[in-house]
Order: sequence, then structure tokens, then C-alpha cells
Amino acid sequence: MGSVVALAGQVGGAKLADGFYRLRGEALTVVVNTGDDYEHLGLAFSPDIDTMLYTLAGIASPSAGWEPEGETHAVHAMLRSLGGPDRPIYGDRSLAAPLLRAEGLANDRRPTEITLDFCRNLRIGARVLPMTDDRVRTNVLTDDGAITFQDYFTQLGCEPAVRGFQYAGADSARISDEVINALHAPDLEAVVICPANPYHVIRPILEIDGMKALLRKRRAPVIAVTPIVGGRALKGSAAKMMRELGRELSARSVAGEYLRIIDGFVLDSEDLGLIDSVRSLGMDVVALPTIMRSIDDRVALAQEVLDFAATIRARLQAQVE
Amino acid sequence: MGSVVALAGQVGGAKLADGFYRLRGEALTVVVNTGDDYEHLGLAFSPDIDTMLYTLAGIASPSAGWEPEGETHAVHAMLRSLGGPDRPIYGDRSLAAPLLRAEGLANDRRPTEITLDFCRNLRIGARVLPMTDDRVRTNVLTDDGAITFQDYFTQLGCEPAVRGFQYAGADSARISDEVINALHAPDLEAVVICPANPYHVIRPILEIDGMKALLRKRRAPVIAVTPIVGGRALKGSAAKMMRELGRELSARSVAGEYLRIIDGFVLDSEDLGLIDSVRSLGMDVVALPTIMRSIDDRVALAQEVLDFAATIRARLQAQVE
Repeated sequence: MGSVVALAGQVGGAKLADGFYRLRGEALTVVVNTGDDYEHLGLAFSPDIDTMLYTLAGIASPSAGWEPEGETHAVHAMLRSLGGPDRPIYGDRSLAAPLLRAEGLANDRRPTEITLDFCRNLRIGARVLPMTDDRVRTNVLTDDGAITFQDYFTQLGCEPAVRGFQYAGADSARISDEVINALHAPDLEAVVICPANPYHVIRPILEIDGMKALLRKRRAPVIAVTPIVGGRALKGSAAKMMRELGRELSARSVAGEYLRIIDGFVLDSEDLGLIDSVRSLGMDVVALPTIMRSIDDRVALAQEVLDFAATIRARLQAQVE
Repeated sequence: MGSVVALAGQVGGAKLADGFYRLRGEALTVVVNTGDDYEHLGLAFSPDIDTMLYTLAGIASPSAGWEPEGETHAVHAMLRSLGGPDRPIYGDRSLAAPLLRAEGLANDRRPTEITLDFCRNLRIGARVLPMTDDRVRTNVLTDDGAITFQDYFTQLGCEPAVRGFQYAGADSARISDEVINALHAPDLEAVVICPANPYHVIRPILEIDGMKALLRKRRAPVIAVTPIVGGRALKGSAAKMMRELGRELSARSVAGEYLRIIDGFVLDSEDLGLIDSVRSLGMDVVALPTIMRSIDDRVALAQEVLDFAATIRARLQAQVE
């Protein structure tokens, strides 16, 4: 059994990463989107990182996977009494990581070091890595101009039509040694693009300077798992964005976003009919139950994805020989 | 009925200030010690200010007056899980003001403006004012050198013997216009030094450049209420400090700390026997029940102090005429 690198963000991405973690333990590295990071009240919020940490630590809320279980809202209630901002609800527990992260950054620690410390303290054997230690911010282009994804999400409630995306800082951001080492691991079995919004979760990772080249030089197949099932997004605003960007609302469009990056694509069983069409894009395709309702679902899907990777690896190997 | 200025800090000081607030409402200004302020995790803690705010807003815990009622500790528990500092317990609600204060300071707002905003939002009619907008830090001098009061209190548990105090920054700190205006009010009835540690709560206020001169030019009597009853401190480390500083452990020593500043001193009824001895220091003295167990106690003591001030005012008036 080799090592696995997952590119991920959001709750769906964290669930599949958790499946790999339960199968591979310390042999898993998760590279997480930080393009949606933001600062508020002096705290350094990194939503996708924290969702991943809570999920892998087994403390994520089953109903609201982006926050720890049993979340309370005492700080926010008091903030409002004191005239503080009437912005999203910060759960109390959800403030701890952003507090410590802000302090770490103020002390010139790298986001990667801070995150690995969190992993150690939460007894997470896998490595959760920010996609880069440099600042990248995903901006949503709307008819009224560019705004940060956070403002789009929290202040505008994802209302404005999306005309495009900007990944500010990505072209000069450096890939960390930790990410490079994970992708260069001699025993690398697969790189898996987890189910998550292609535009503001996966694309920012891929846009880091040199990342696509690094994936192309990979020693293992790159496989993406669809976040679109039966023409709808499982969660979040992916479907709305695809419509507004003029994309066909289907798993095939997602596969198209990853063209020339992935070797294999995982459709949901519901979209079995799309197999040939996606295959015609020039990639291996398999249809699997991708909806993860239970921990068992996560592990089962992770195993199937690794099996799929093994068949691709065998085929690539045969081509070389 | 005129206006009242209270100099205060700690829970005892807040209780008496609350008595004045219930009697005088908007005509009360409280000037609060900020020498014990500290920064931690990027937050700007101002313990005496926040205790005063919670108390006047009627939301202070009856058993732990320095924090809001119903305090929880979810953030701290999560901070510890993440490897955060194993330092004092921060209640969740208690983090809100330090968070907003840090943000305000980062945006170049004055502590006074920030605090007055808190008053408005908490519907506190009185003005709670930091003793200065400049940075003053009370250092405790020990055999091992000078340490901040916060470190002395939280990290060393008030263990080391106290050899003296330093009020770093006090001699160059400016009195704010808001404090000057309150002390210049034509209808000023009394300036009351509330029961609190003389060394690290009241002294820092008095040491602000020009404060003693301003009090001497006062239009109203200055009265201090003892924090020492029957040879013991009601709360905190005042008694220990007095012993270590070689002071006699009595209300008379406290009166001595305020020599040439106060016109009148309020002893506890239990120390009736000290009246003549304190009077011999050259001030009016009265003995009153100073222990405030209930809201009624606060109001009763505040009223007695104002009555005492009225008799002193009448005497001073008679001297002038």
C-alpha cells in the first residue's frame, strides 16, 4: 500500500479525504484550498483547512461539517451586544483555530507549520497542508466588478451572477516543500481531486505556479471525483456558478475543467449514461456511488477510487513497457 | 443633584460605581484603571474596563463579577485541543470586548471612543472612561526584577514578594478630554476613589501626568472608600502587598496612600476605632458599612458617600466664605 495525495476543500472534499485517511492513515497528505481564507476581527480564518481538521479529527458536526460538533455561539452573541459586526455566525469553538493561526502568522510562522501543529495536537496522523504558504485570494468576477469569495459568500449570499474568477497571488505563490515532497513520494499511488467546487476550491490549488506541471510529472494517476450528480450540485453554489458561466450543468463539464490534468474521472452511478461522453474527452471513467452519507460510504468510495487508480496505473505501466 | 466622578477598577470598585450609577444615571463618569491591560493572542484585554461594563450593564456574574453571567469556556477548550496556551481560562463572552477592542485599536480608534461605543451598545447611560488613551503598564517589582502585573497575577499566581511598583508610561500619558471635562463639570458633587487595590488599580490613575494636580484644582471633595476592612483585604492581593511593602495592614495605611489627594476617607464600621487616627492624617473621616453583598448595599453606600461629600462641601464652602 502506497501513499495518497488528495486535493480538497469544503465538506464533501473532507469526507472523501477522511475515507482515504481511514484506509491509509499516515500515508495520506491532503492539500487544501486556502483561496477562501479571510481576516476578520484580526483573526485568520481558513475555512477549508479547519473543515478538514475537524473532519479528520472526528470532531466535525454531522449536520454542519464545517464546524466542530456541539458548537455554541456565546462569543457572537456578546459581540453583537457590544455593537460588533452583524456578520456570519462564528461558533465559539470555530474561533480557536483562527485565533491561534493569527498569532502564529504574527510570529512569522508558515501556515504549513501552524496547520501541522494543529494536526499533531488533534492527533491527526495524516498531513493536512495549505496549498501554499503564500497569500492567494479567490475573487469572484461579477457585473459589478471583482469581490473576494468570502464577501460574495457571506455578505452577498452568493446572489450576483458569476462571470469568472481571479486567483490573486496564485501565479507568484510557491508550492511548499511539504507539498512537493508528498507529490514526489516514490510510493505515491494516486492523486485525487476530491468532490468540491471546481472554481473556488480546486482551481485555486491548480493555479499555484508550477502545480499543473508538477501534477503532469506525477508518478501516479490523477483522478477527479465529481461534485455534480444528476445535473445538480450536492452542496453549495457549484451548479449556480456553472449555469452563470455558460457551462452545461453536468459531471461532464466538471471533467472538462480538469482536462489535461486528470487521467481518470469518477462519475456518480446516477450518471452512468455519461460514461462514453466523458471518456471521449480522453480519460478513463468509472461510475460509482459518490454520495457519502455515512463513514462507511466515505471508506467505500475511497477504496473504489484507489482501485480505479490501480487499474489506470496498470494500463499506464503497460503503455510504458 | 450634581455629577459624580468615580475612580475605579476591580469588582469592588465596579460595585460602588454601580451604586452611583443607580443614583445618578447619566451624571456619573467612571475613570477606570488600564494599567493592568494586556495583549494575548492578538486580543486587547482591559480587565478593569470590562468588569465595569458588565457591572453597569447588569450582566456581570454575581459570583465572578469580572465576567458576564452564564460564562462558558468552549473557545478555551478548543484552544487547548489545538495546542494553544495553557493560560488563564478565558470565558467565551469575555473574549468579545477584547476582540472588538483589538480591532478598534488596529483601526486607530482611541480606547475612550471604543469604550464609549461599548457603553452605548450595552445601554449604559454613564460614561466609562479609560484613565488615559495612552499606554500605561503597571509593573510589579520583585526580588527577581520587574514583571507586568498580568504576569504576576496569572503566571506567578501573585507568589513573589512585592518590593514596589512601576507605572510605565504614566508620566508621559495624557489625560483625555473626556476625563478633563468630567472633572471640570460645574455641577461636580464628588470625586470618589472606589474600594480597590491602592497599588495597581488606583495609583496608576493618580500617576497619569497632571492627574493629581487636576484633582487638587477640583471643584468638589475627593473621597476614598477603604478596600481594607478589619485588617484584611476584602478581595485580591492588597493585604499581601501591604505586608510585603512594610505597610501596617489597616485602613489607615490606605488613607495614607491618598494623603494630600483626598478630603475625606470612608472606613468600614468595623474599624470605627480608627476614626481619630485617620482623622489625624488631616482629613474628614466617616465609618460606614462598606461591604456590598447586594445591589441595595451598593446604592446605600453610594448614598452615604454622597451625603459625606455634601458635609465636606459645606465645610469647605464655609471656609471660603
